[in-house]
Amino acid sequence: MQSIAFYQEEFVSYLEKRNQIKEPRNLYEPVAYILGLGGKRLRPVLTLMAADFFGGNHKDALAAAMAVEVFHNFSLVHDDIMDDAPLRRGNPTVHEKWDVNTGILSGDAMLINSYQLFEQYDDATFARLVRLFSATAIEVCEGQQYDVDFETRDDVSIPEYLKMIEYKTAVLVACALKIGAIVAGAPERQQNLIYDFGRNLGIAFQIQDDYLDAFGDPKTFGKQIGGDIIENKKTFLYLKALENGNKEQQKQLLDLYSIQPNNPEGKIFAVKEVFTSTAAVQATAEAIEAYTLKAFEALDQIDLPKERKAILVEFGNNLMKRTT
Amino acid sequence: MQSIAFYQEEFVSYLEKRNQIKEPRNLYEPVAYILGLGGKRLRPVLTLMAADFFGGNHKDALAAAMAVEVFHNFSLVHDDIMDDAPLRRGNPTVHEKWDVNTGILSGDAMLINSYQLFEQYDDATFARLVRLFSATAIEVCEGQQYDVDFETRDDVSIPEYLKMIEYKTAVLVACALKIGAIVAGAPERQQNLIYDFGRNLGIAFQIQDDYLDAFGDPKTFGKQIGGDIIENKKTFLYLKALENGNKEQQKQLLDLYSIQPNNPEGKIFAVKEVFTSTAAVQATAEAIEAYTLKAFEALDQIDLPKERKAILVEFGNNLMKRTT
Repeated sequence: MQSIAFYQEEFVSYLEKRNQIKEPRNLYEPVAYILGLGGKRLRPVLTLMAADFFGGNHKDALAAAMAVEVFHNFSLVHDDIMDDAPLRRGNPTVHEKWDVNTGILSGDAMLINSYQLFEQYDDATFARLVRLFSATAIEVCEGQQYDVDFETRDDVSIPEYLKMIEYKTAVLVACALKIGAIVAGAPERQQNLIYDFGRNLGIAFQIQDDYLDAFGDPKTFGKQIGGDIIENKKTFLYLKALENGNKEQQKQLLDLYSIQPNNPEGKIFAVKEVFTSTAAVQATAEAIEAYTLKAFEALDQIDLPKERKAILVEFGNNLMKRTT
Repeated sequence: MQSIAFYQEEFVSYLEKRNQIKEPRNLYEPVAYILGLGGKRLRPVLTLMAADFFGGNHKDALAAAMAVEVFHNFSLVHDDIMDDAPLRRGNPTVHEKWDVNTGILSGDAMLINSYQLFEQYDDATFARLVRLFSATAIEVCEGQQYDVDFETRDDVSIPEYLKMIEYKTAVLVACALKIGAIVAGAPERQQNLIYDFGRNLGIAFQIQDDYLDAFGDPKTFGKQIGGDIIENKKTFLYLKALENGNKEQQKQLLDLYSIQPNNPEGKIFAVKEVFTSTAAVQATAEAIEAYTLKAFEALDQIDLPKERKAILVEFGNNLMKRTT
């Protein structure tokens, strides 16, 4: 197996060759634009890695990896419309650069294109890939809906929150890995173990994202620290603080989450104080640890020598190392 | 084979049993709503008819017919957002009853659900159905994009227009029939002939729709007569009048299509005069006739006794009888 950088290069060179603008240009130009914006290409890299990992050839998995990446970008285009987001990876979002209608229709075309990318596989593999892909895609939509619903609900439970991030984020990571395993022809039990590895790593990653949004290092996190607090977002930290806190702490947090001051520094500081004093910070760190552990346990059970697993362990550690 | 009304009933009873609202409700309620609004269910009826026609059992084609209907309704939900349409089948559109974000996300879920409806077929059939379905779906998107593009273009040619209506409308009719043929296990040549029947009938139907919009009987047409003229829509009649007309007639038509008077009666009358004097009306009637003929020629070539074809002939005649 090769390094993560190797798989990134393999994927990007495949993508660049295929990222041509067809007619009608107004439909496909936004597709080429969003796919060309870059990003870490985590999901397709996982597909390629999994294909090699299970004794296949990552080159055979390039089209399937592209399907995952095209689907991911479809969901970004439509989510950005729903969130009215002006920027994506430092560039204008599709609906900002063009308009909402273009974002809707180009997104639809990307969703269909992602299905078409599986057509090069034999019928049995195609059927397996498309079933998994549809099941994942519908969960991503449901996760997005739960996320929207949670904005206006004040009784979100932690299990509900975990289900939301699992659907919205983790299942696509898991699906990317399992797709590589399917292309490589891995036995079903092995496919499910690598799926579980991805699912748990994805959940751990998302909870960590919540944590870093409040307590991360501004130099390395990339986003504005306290962004979730400014937007009154119901994160794992917030829900845990409400669960753990006494009446007074609960009231303080609810009050802080009912305001949107022009200068948010004081609010951010006060909310983080509650996160700490209710031991929500500690509980969040423990949850990250627990899901990361579950991920590595699933990996451990896969029937391949430890040396083989080294690169997936490295990938997982790299992903979770951001905490420090 | 049974009557068209029989297939409608079979389909509607299948749909009603399956049109349950799952969680998250805010995602699936709009899906149940739009699918429950009714309509003639033309496309799924064609799938069921084709399955019986080719010696299969229409009951085996119900899931595939449902996929076609769910896809069609997905495209209505997203198109209605793009057109800012307030009403669909006399009821509020999804984005009016809920909001644009709900329309986008519920539409996405419907597109994915339509793929899932093919999962009950064996791998080889599944692969055939999904390939055809994706190819059709992407053409529907491209057709919608061409339609949007034409609004701001003043050099649309008749071949371009025909391609637009073929993609936007006809290919899904053709696909619905071919899907029934695939489920019934018809030979590929027969599948392609029934596809051609549907494609040409779909084009004829759409050109006829253009014709009836200007010259139809207000009592039977269902939509406001002259609606396309009011909206300066580049229909077959309009493009043909521009092509056939002399300099003066061209100028008159372009002038009429540059205004949107509060009382449109005079404009509608004048435009229809140009359609008639340029012989665009006659050319349009000939085009409808030619495509209908092509459709029945394809049907004629299918290797089955005439009695078998009777119901498809009846269907075609019913569809095109609206002219009178």
